[in-house]
Amino acid sequence: MQDIKFDSRGLVPAVVQDADTGEVLMVGYMNEEALKRTLTTGDVWFYSRSRQELWHKGETSGNFIHTAEVWKDCDSDTILVKAKPVGPVCHTGNKTCFFQKLTSKDL
Amino acid sequence: MQDIKFDSRGLVPAVVQDADTGEVLMVGYMNEEALKRTLTTGDVWFYSRSRQELWHKGETSGNFIHTAEVWKDCDSDTILVKAKPVGPVCHTGNKTCFFQKLTSKDL
Repeated sequence: MQDIKFDSRGLVPAVVQDADTGEVLMVGYMNEEALKRTLTTGDVWFYSRSRQELWHKGETSGNFIHTAEVWKDCDSDTILVKAKPVGPVCHTGNKTCFFQKLTSKDL
Repeated sequence: MQDIKFDSRGLVPAVVQDADTGEVLMVGYMNEEALKRTLTTGDVWFYSRSRQELWHKGETSGNFIHTAEVWKDCDSDTILVKAKPVGPVCHTGNKTCFFQKLTSKDL
């Protein structure tokens, strides 16, 4: 698979970005099978590190994420998926998982 | 530090996104000190896993990345930096590290 460098756990981080707005929605982890399914099924798949199983994003909430484009980085150890989310991506109900801003006051 | 969940190596992945264009530029790793410096110095810092040392991005190339906003995700285990790069972010000279597209033919 195109020299993708999976880590010692067999995973690569995958950034999901809204293909229309450019908003960064979440970061998940993919194993080889999740990456294959993301490239072939039209939906974004991850490997759940907590449940230790393949995770079809949206399988419980119905908020699937449709794959638009998949990119790898220069080192082939990170994936970027440009995608079209059906609904809120975050389990909190937020559109994006990145809804908490940090400042130097948080130090 | 705001309950950031650093992993067993003391690191969190950090996505760097162009604050003006929305383009995802790179993913690096930060330890607590790199995150502190990113929040306080105005520049993006990482922890280099290969060199095992703090890494002031741009220190050799001059292509510093100026911090605009820092966000954490819902699980507090991933950072998103919206930033203004001085020059190309990738060591290959590309504007972004994500310049290689994957398709199902790459499987």
